[in-house]
Amino acid sequence: MHESGYFQKIIEEELKSIRLNSVPVELYDPIRYMLSLGGKRLRPSFVLMAAEIFSDDYMSAISPALGIEVFHNFTLLHDDIMDKAPLRRSQETVHKKWNSDVAILSGDTMFVKSCELIMQVNDAVLRPVMTLFYKTAVEVCEGQQLDMNYESENSVSIEQYISMIKLKTAALLACSLKTGALVAGATETEADHLYAFGKNIGIAFQLHDDMLDVYGDEQKFGKQIGGDILANKKTFLLLKAIETATGVNANELKRWINMKEFNPHEKITAVKEIFSSLKIREAVENKMEHFYQQAVITLDLVSVPEERKKVLREFAETLMVREA
Amino acid sequence: MHESGYFQKIIEEELKSIRLNSVPVELYDPIRYMLSLGGKRLRPSFVLMAAEIFSDDYMSAISPALGIEVFHNFTLLHDDIMDKAPLRRSQETVHKKWNSDVAILSGDTMFVKSCELIMQVNDAVLRPVMTLFYKTAVEVCEGQQLDMNYESENSVSIEQYISMIKLKTAALLACSLKTGALVAGATETEADHLYAFGKNIGIAFQLHDDMLDVYGDEQKFGKQIGGDILANKKTFLLLKAIETATGVNANELKRWINMKEFNPHEKITAVKEIFSSLKIREAVENKMEHFYQQAVITLDLVSVPEERKKVLREFAETLMVREA
Repeated sequence: MHESGYFQKIIEEELKSIRLNSVPVELYDPIRYMLSLGGKRLRPSFVLMAAEIFSDDYMSAISPALGIEVFHNFTLLHDDIMDKAPLRRSQETVHKKWNSDVAILSGDTMFVKSCELIMQVNDAVLRPVMTLFYKTAVEVCEGQQLDMNYESENSVSIEQYISMIKLKTAALLACSLKTGALVAGATETEADHLYAFGKNIGIAFQLHDDMLDVYGDEQKFGKQIGGDILANKKTFLLLKAIETATGVNANELKRWINMKEFNPHEKITAVKEIFSSLKIREAVENKMEHFYQQAVITLDLVSVPEERKKVLREFAETLMVREA
Repeated sequence: MHESGYFQKIIEEELKSIRLNSVPVELYDPIRYMLSLGGKRLRPSFVLMAAEIFSDDYMSAISPALGIEVFHNFTLLHDDIMDKAPLRRSQETVHKKWNSDVAILSGDTMFVKSCELIMQVNDAVLRPVMTLFYKTAVEVCEGQQLDMNYESENSVSIEQYISMIKLKTAALLACSLKTGALVAGATETEADHLYAFGKNIGIAFQLHDDMLDVYGDEQKFGKQIGGDILANKKTFLLLKAIETATGVNANELKRWINMKEFNPHEKITAVKEIFSSLKIREAVENKMEHFYQQAVITLDLVSVPEERKKVLREFAETLMVREA
């Protein structure tokens, strides 16, 4: 059994060998650029790790693994246009480096390429794998639309937020694991256990991300701490604070949220103090732990020798304590 | 055998029954809107007509037919953003009626939906049908990118132009015919003859469109005549005129192309006069005829009784003399 780092290296290498036409350059250069920006390669690693649980021939899942990573990068590319984001992994976004027309169309092309790659599985699983992928792709679009809607909605419940991250983030992680399992010959039931594991780990993963944005180490996290606070981003932390704050805390929180001009450092400090008095960090950590435990329960249900599940189990643990 | 009008009605009805989620409304309302705007439904009609050539059970191809129409409308939706088009079939475009974020994301969702619909074919042809569709989808993206590139390029050859419309327009028409044939049990060879027919008819179809924009009847064509001339659009007609004009014609053409301010009616009249003295209408009609004849030759190669091909043959003829 191989560690996640091993799979990450394979993915990084194999991504370079994806065959793309060379012209028109406006279509293909942005795709190569997007795929060269790096990242944790979490989703394709999940595909290969899940495949290795059921078969030593995990490389039979390499093509769908790459396809899911290309799809993920397509969603980032289009999201960046909608979010007007200038940077992605400290590099210029495609719509900034080229323009938004190029970003739309090269994104569309990436989507087609991801379908082509995911289709490279044996006939026995072609239909279930593609069906799962399209269902997931729709969910990711729905999640992104809800995320945009919530930006301008006044009252978003924690339940709505969890539903949104299930679609936007957790669904594709779950799909990655189930795809790997199916390609490696797992039964639908076994594959579904891994899917449930991925859904729960995915939610915990996103909550952890929300937490790092406030309590992370700037050096290790690689982006500015408090960005979500400055943008009034409706993360689990802010929604929980709005839900539980009363009296002075509630008034202060409202005041900072509505303030048009402020010193960024002061706002971050003030909101973190409110979070602290409301024990928001404990609340998000409890929630993370809840979904992590749910994930562990479903992993236990997968009926293969424990040693085959060990790598995925340990990897999930490291995801929960990661600092970046 | 059924006429194209019969298939068009079926498509129109069946498009209404495509199952779409209701929320988020920002994602699904634009899709319903786009699909309700009408049109010739040429591509899905081609799918069903091709299917009926090989089998009486042409309705087994209804799902991929709808999928290809949804895909076509997805490309129009994203193209309209890039072209900053305010109107589509005399109605507001999605990015105008909603906004461009909604247009990007509902377009992406349409694309996924089209894949889901096209996948509803029997196992025996699933892989060839999906492989053909993805190949075509990439070609359509490449064609759109080349079309955008040519807007700002100074010298575009007629050869380049034909290559571009092969990708942007003809490829999907060819794909539609081949898909219908494959689903109805045609051999790869027979299906390829229909594909070649579609490629050639598709080019002739686009050249006809270019011609109608200059020589059509405004009432029947449904849009302003001369729009391409005003926008200096590099159609076959303008490229042919640039290629063949000498002396006064060449200077006059250049002068009108570079003129920043002009009376629209005067520009259209002047350019049409140049076209007339260069016999551009005859040139485009000859070129159309050439591709039409090429199409007919490949249709002759399809080895089914002539009566089964008659409807498609006649439909192709009407496409060549249409006024809208």
